[in-house]
Amino acid sequence: MRKIAAMEDFFSEEHRRQIVETAEKVGFTVDFYPRDTLPAGRETEYEVFYGFPPMDLLKKAVNLKWYCCSFAGVDKFLSDDIYPNPDVMLSNSSGAYGTTISEHMIMVTLMLLRHMPTYVETVRKHQWHESIPMRSICGSTITVLGAGDIGTNFARRAKAMGAKLIRGVRRTAKAGDPCYDEMYTFDRLDEILPKTEILVMALPSTPDTVGMLSRERIALLDKDAIVVNVGRGTAIDQDALMDALNEERIAGAALDVMMPEPLPADHPLWDAKNLIITPHISGNMSLGITRDLDVAMFCEDLENYAVGRPLKRYVNRKIGY
Amino acid sequence: MRKIAAMEDFFSEEHRRQIVETAEKVGFTVDFYPRDTLPAGRETEYEVFYGFPPMDLLKKAVNLKWYCCSFAGVDKFLSDDIYPNPDVMLSNSSGAYGTTISEHMIMVTLMLLRHMPTYVETVRKHQWHESIPMRSICGSTITVLGAGDIGTNFARRAKAMGAKLIRGVRRTAKAGDPCYDEMYTFDRLDEILPKTEILVMALPSTPDTVGMLSRERIALLDKDAIVVNVGRGTAIDQDALMDALNEERIAGAALDVMMPEPLPADHPLWDAKNLIITPHISGNMSLGITRDLDVAMFCEDLENYAVGRPLKRYVNRKIGY
Repeated sequence: MRKIAAMEDFFSEEHRRQIVETAEKVGFTVDFYPRDTLPAGRETEYEVFYGFPPMDLLKKAVNLKWYCCSFAGVDKFLSDDIYPNPDVMLSNSSGAYGTTISEHMIMVTLMLLRHMPTYVETVRKHQWHESIPMRSICGSTITVLGAGDIGTNFARRAKAMGAKLIRGVRRTAKAGDPCYDEMYTFDRLDEILPKTEILVMALPSTPDTVGMLSRERIALLDKDAIVVNVGRGTAIDQDALMDALNEERIAGAALDVMMPEPLPADHPLWDAKNLIITPHISGNMSLGITRDLDVAMFCEDLENYAVGRPLKRYVNRKIGY
Repeated sequence: MRKIAAMEDFFSEEHRRQIVETAEKVGFTVDFYPRDTLPAGRETEYEVFYGFPPMDLLKKAVNLKWYCCSFAGVDKFLSDDIYPNPDVMLSNSSGAYGTTISEHMIMVTLMLLRHMPTYVETVRKHQWHESIPMRSICGSTITVLGAGDIGTNFARRAKAMGAKLIRGVRRTAKAGDPCYDEMYTFDRLDEILPKTEILVMALPSTPDTVGMLSRERIALLDKDAIVVNVGRGTAIDQDALMDALNEERIAGAALDVMMPEPLPADHPLWDAKNLIITPHISGNMSLGITRDLDVAMFCEDLENYAVGRPLKRYVNRKIGY
């Protein structure tokens, strides 16, 4: 019998039923485990992994043909070295996180434009603060660096809120979602950074994207610009960003991802000026719609896999998505 | 010569030019004053006031025919007693605040649904907090109490973010904006409160609306419900709301308006559980688009006034808007 190991903590009874039903339909059985708890020795039983297997058992899963990661970011799972053979297919759960992460992005963007950290501090002290001049998403010029599912969900919401101009930036030159006014490739980033009021970053960590927002590029930003990063901390020269914030060369930033994670208690990033830090919580499995979509997308790709169709969320391990 | 006193602090050169040009076109001259500084004795020169006159001079402005308030909320200016005669027309600047206040509403709604106050507290302490289950505007059931310009701007944005069902509630039964799935009148509020996940309130303060969210109605809300108020503090039984928050009978609230304002430093409201307080800053003149619209709308109504057409933002002082 062909077997699947489904290794996640969030499955409801309904999720389990849905996975088992789809599996049976296409000739598989399913064993469920919490994340990271597959007992050593059993890894060889499975043709398919879904969720999070123990990293050290991945290499020994000699019958593994497909690993579907329940997260969108799969940078830890790109190397051939961690698999028993280079032919193991990797897929991710890109598409499950657009709603939750884009809502985070809208929230922190507004918190920065509307000086919410200042009001939070004065309210803590029971002080009635006078009104400070604010800015708006309405009428703003936005650059979305990483125009995939997450970036595009943000762009759609920003468009509906009246953004004046939304530029998408990505690796390839293919046409963008209609919510983008203009599309650019990575190599033209320097042209548009000086004209950007709101820079949002939703990049996977790949050789192309590491360090993309370098010290030189941060220097291209206007002093009124804000930066929001929900992709991976590796995409930003974090020391350079901290300098720009502390010297008020940019207006603010919101980081849900950083280096390292968790951030040590004595790290200077915690106290950078006009910075909103969140502890990598914009995505995860915190939203019901994310969990439901994650399972539905696995089931969809399981049906594809069973009949030899290409996986819809197949990851090319060479380029990283 | 017919004269206008324009009394505001926010006017730019361009705003002054625009007001003067419109006035000259229709046979008026304009004097500019900062808010609340018109010298006593000069109030009799003017046929039109725009902005904020000193309250005590309003009564003595015996030649006043029209007062255009630069704010949307005009509860302080409803009584006949403050005017030299009952025929003085009042208009407001409803329509200038929809963008800024609706962005505030989206921001605080997401902050409540995503437990942002908890993360802010732990980040203050340089602590890396684990992910907490969150909720989303996407898929939610929303009641907009006060379906005017501000409420409707919020409803449009919430719809674009995937809200499942948006109910508008207002005084009259006329058809609502297409962004509302259903429209109700005030007398049916009790039916829909138990089925509301997000209750937003953008009501003017009128005899109809004072105390509308009473203790009895707060008791109808689900324990997962959140309440956002940007209208007037008088609309809520504030003590009852505080009790519901502190006893966790509702999930959270965000108040930009309260009683009294400013809130005294020793008031218990500051420390209510799961409450986001902001010091009445959601509107004001903090956003450029608000200031521009405010002036443009006055100029539009000045042209109406000059030729005897009805004022577009005329306020019926008996009902309060």
